[in-house]
Amino acid sequence: MSELKGACILGQSGGPTSVINASAYGVIATALNSPAITAVYGAEHGIKGVLNDRLFDMGKEAPAELELLKYTPSSALGSCRYKMADPDMDDTDYKRILETFKKYDVRYFFYNGGNDSMDTCNKISKYMQKAGYECRVMGVPKTIDNDLYGTDHCPGYASAAKYIATSCMEVYQDARVYDTGMVCIIEIMGRHAGWLAGAAALATAYGAGPDLVYLPETDFNMEEFLADVERIYKEKGNCMVAVSEGIHYPDGTFVSEAKASATDGFGHAQLGGLAATLAAVVKEKTGAKVRGIELSLLQRCGAHLASETDIEESFMAGKAAVENAVNGITDKMVGFERIERDGHYVCKTALLNLTDVANTEKKVPREWINPRGNGVEQPFIDYVLPLIQGEPKLPKEDSLPRFAKLKKVLAK
Amino acid sequence: MSELKGACILGQSGGPTSVINASAYGVIATALNSPAITAVYGAEHGIKGVLNDRLFDMGKEAPAELELLKYTPSSALGSCRYKMADPDMDDTDYKRILETFKKYDVRYFFYNGGNDSMDTCNKISKYMQKAGYECRVMGVPKTIDNDLYGTDHCPGYASAAKYIATSCMEVYQDARVYDTGMVCIIEIMGRHAGWLAGAAALATAYGAGPDLVYLPETDFNMEEFLADVERIYKEKGNCMVAVSEGIHYPDGTFVSEAKASATDGFGHAQLGGLAATLAAVVKEKTGAKVRGIELSLLQRCGAHLASETDIEESFMAGKAAVENAVNGITDKMVGFERIERDGHYVCKTALLNLTDVANTEKKVPREWINPRGNGVEQPFIDYVLPLIQGEPKLPKEDSLPRFAKLKKVLAK
Repeated sequence: MSELKGACILGQSGGPTSVINASAYGVIATALNSPAITAVYGAEHGIKGVLNDRLFDMGKEAPAELELLKYTPSSALGSCRYKMADPDMDDTDYKRILETFKKYDVRYFFYNGGNDSMDTCNKISKYMQKAGYECRVMGVPKTIDNDLYGTDHCPGYASAAKYIATSCMEVYQDARVYDTGMVCIIEIMGRHAGWLAGAAALATAYGAGPDLVYLPETDFNMEEFLADVERIYKEKGNCMVAVSEGIHYPDGTFVSEAKASATDGFGHAQLGGLAATLAAVVKEKTGAKVRGIELSLLQRCGAHLASETDIEESFMAGKAAVENAVNGITDKMVGFERIERDGHYVCKTALLNLTDVANTEKKVPREWINPRGNGVEQPFIDYVLPLIQGEPKLPKEDSLPRFAKLKKVLAK
Repeated sequence: MSELKGACILGQSGGPTSVINASAYGVIATALNSPAITAVYGAEHGIKGVLNDRLFDMGKEAPAELELLKYTPSSALGSCRYKMADPDMDDTDYKRILETFKKYDVRYFFYNGGNDSMDTCNKISKYMQKAGYECRVMGVPKTIDNDLYGTDHCPGYASAAKYIATSCMEVYQDARVYDTGMVCIIEIMGRHAGWLAGAAALATAYGAGPDLVYLPETDFNMEEFLADVERIYKEKGNCMVAVSEGIHYPDGTFVSEAKASATDGFGHAQLGGLAATLAAVVKEKTGAKVRGIELSLLQRCGAHLASETDIEESFMAGKAAVENAVNGITDKMVGFERIERDGHYVCKTALLNLTDVANTEKKVPREWINPRGNGVEQPFIDYVLPLIQGEPKLPKEDSLPRFAKLKKVLAK
């Protein structure tokens, strides 16, 4: 390993999470303390900040405010959804990035995001190698969807899972106070993977959660769904359902986007999401009082319900990215490995090839979902439970959250 | 005062709150310790439990589980929305209630609810007086809407307000991560009074909240609303709006129910609530990315964000109801009086006539709302801030809420 001296850039990309800034703090705090790293820059809106020469000098921030990043939800530096071109087809952006790297003598690049962001990170890494520009590129994982390949789980997932489980437990109490009964449908994020929707079953495992849980890993069958809801509603007088936004028919059509058909009574949905759509169908079929609740952005920014484990692991992922890079590693994403030690959950970092990670989705194993596709099995619960543990001591001001306030001084 | 020995009944009524069971615990714990009270019954589903002879013997519950009621959201005994007839027109229900009272020697009746429930409580109180049946009847206030007459505020309001303010602060972080901009519309409960929607302005007061807040105390003007959103969106690239579900046009029509008109582009809404409706209108007008979020049941059962002040005051209200009744008071509702002591907020209980409270709504004073009707003034913030203070130490099991588990043994 050769020592490589130079500046670093951190970018945040894709949909934010409630702990993404804990990873940012892991990168920033570690980089600020690394003798090899001469300056620490935060890119405004991910790779766009590099393209537009909008870099914040993290060394100019008050250390106490930086520390608050651990408890501040949603990309503090700004995020982006920017698809990089294939450099063999169009290398304009890559040349621009190289220009910025040279201008600031950037030798370390840390990119924090999900599938698409790892693709960006991978492309930049490969381009710099090809261009012969020495720069260590590391991906830091982040996604509430938990669908990154090769890692046991992703930073951000557990806090969203805890938010979902806790909210389901509370709504469960509320949705059964009247003797008139109710069907309650909770819509949860996760377009292609059901990790988040499955977390609703944690509430059930603790005695107050959905009767039915639908993940996008299986095909949705409206008739079976309605039959199951009706049966439970008749039996118990109430029925609670958790659905992933990504549930779809066998032909791949999302239920949320399905158009009118004579058989299923569809065609109501013009506004409102899946929960509202399903609520209308259930109401028509059963005559029950029905309420659809979409957890929407709340589930991915609910830092007040963050898992302490998730916060610490997110920090650790950022820290490991810097430490490994300084030690000569490049072209990798930091991942997590789960170890059982004396019957306890322990999480270790691992290094994965960016090429392997980019654009590969990890789904919930079919055997973790019950045969009828309306619930999850015990292995799913065992998987997610250790991840949500621990209550962080949240900084507050007058009983409201005290989030980090960054000065965001532009680098010159 | 004459000592009156006998059993007591507690009923929970109307929409639940995240601290309604703290009042129940205040009643139950105090009553179980009162020598005058021979048995403590919880009515299943409010007054319906009295009518149907479905009373739970609270003395049979484990004390530790009863204590957990302080942190368990939503009417643990079950609630109802049951409108009592005018006893002069139809006294069937009242005779039935008297029968149950006599059967169990009930001499104390505590009813925990909002406007309609206080009407029920008042009618029962007056009927018992007329029937010459000695029974002390006390109302215990409860409503997230905070619209009960004569009391400074209502148990349940502050915790919902804190949930709303905190969630707005978190969503604020999330709704501005991209450089592409977004309009975010948050729909908050409160059909006739804007106390809850106004609480969103707490988030703004702490630097991360809605730019615009609309309460039902003023008439809604769609043109002004769109102009305000467009102006802010152009200026800042983002705009966050909090709306009460009860906003209405000058003719009283709820905006959520307004039908298509040629001028305002309405007529989309078939599913989804007000937030989805307004989001569609704003999208059409501004072309911006728009997201509508309905806080729905989450805001009234979010016990994990409860205000410790609210929990303690809710408990105090229940306790005061029992203590006053045992001391000879009847036909009153417990209310709150706000006192400033050495510059600090102090809350004392007061006694209000049930007749005065029943069916009278307290609205947000017009002068606490800004002239244009799109925000609240400082006195509103000063009013609500002390109420949301304090973090309760929430009982958890594996980092998930541990709610009370009642045996609900039916009284014989």
